[in-house]
Amino acid sequence: MKSQGSPPLQIHKLEPKVKQGLTVVITGHGKGKTTSALGMALRACGHGMKVCIIQFMKGDLYAGEWDGVKLLGDQVELHTTGKGFCGILGNPYPKSEHRANAQDAVRLSLEKIDSGAFDMVVLDEINNALQLQLVDLEQVLEILSRKPPLMHLVLTGRDAHPLVIELADTVSEVVEVKHAYRKEIEPQPGVDY
Amino acid sequence: MKSQGSPPLQIHKLEPKVKQGLTVVITGHGKGKTTSALGMALRACGHGMKVCIIQFMKGDLYAGEWDGVKLLGDQVELHTTGKGFCGILGNPYPKSEHRANAQDAVRLSLEKIDSGAFDMVVLDEINNALQLQLVDLEQVLEILSRKPPLMHLVLTGRDAHPLVIELADTVSEVVEVKHAYRKEIEPQPGVDY
Repeated sequence: MKSQGSPPLQIHKLEPKVKQGLTVVITGHGKGKTTSALGMALRACGHGMKVCIIQFMKGDLYAGEWDGVKLLGDQVELHTTGKGFCGILGNPYPKSEHRANAQDAVRLSLEKIDSGAFDMVVLDEINNALQLQLVDLEQVLEILSRKPPLMHLVLTGRDAHPLVIELADTVSEVVEVKHAYRKEIEPQPGVDY
Repeated sequence: MKSQGSPPLQIHKLEPKVKQGLTVVITGHGKGKTTSALGMALRACGHGMKVCIIQFMKGDLYAGEWDGVKLLGDQVELHTTGKGFCGILGNPYPKSEHRANAQDAVRLSLEKIDSGAFDMVVLDEINNALQLQLVDLEQVLEILSRKPPLMHLVLTGRDAHPLVIELADTVSEVVEVKHAYRKEIEPQPGVDY
């Protein structure tokens, strides 16, 4: 069915005239924020980049990405720094402890950003941590201001702060159209965790 | 700063009582649809799953994920089946050829789904291909109906068909809040491709 005379497939490769590290925010209440950041990490690895993922508020509940990124070898490091979602039903840790963990995560974030060792740093759930006052706006602004020009910085989590959105280059809001859990389907490995 | 008497960190692992393969649709005009599907593939690999990614309408423009998934080894296979976005400026291929490619992709999708070899099949940009009439609604419905109960099926691309949304378990719409290209920033490796 190939059309007569159509040009053969040529694979082009984009190469920006001006390379630039972007600040990307993935927010909203729908499924696919952390997931999207993980996809960026995978894509970055394909370009030979080094990626650091710091998960705020996560660490008490196994997620497939913890083992998934190991398959990417030493191009990616992933740090869990938390003890689950502060304030949700059944979480046994006091807010002071969630905040202490998030404060450690801020220090780790600045250290990794300042190290110059990474082409991409993902701060997973930091928007959420800010909204819950586990980190302060000034701290997130400090992180944004310390981003090296060529490093990509990805911030995920619901309820991104308006000032963070203003300072970012690319912002997506993931809106829930529907979600399996509303049909009483339990979280499924591979998709939900 | 650890609170006195707070419980030590225990890592829990979810295990659904009823395992179920989900149909997930990631649509919308914002950045992070293919990216989200790639993140699901990475996460699935962490669970030891096998993933097949079929990219509709892509194949003429290098994307980092082509090399990124190679790092995941034989748990993932990725097929590009297209020659770029039909109808966009500068694309030299006639619509008949885009449609022929997409029809090949449908056949490949059914073959991979029917093989039973995969825990997750990602049909990247199929929503878009349907909207552009490179595939027919009946074909997408056929694909949905052939999904094995335990296999996850992920369909990405803008303008998902209402009937596809209705049949899916989880649907997210990625809304563009802002995008770097509107500031005349060129697509950057790792983030945009």
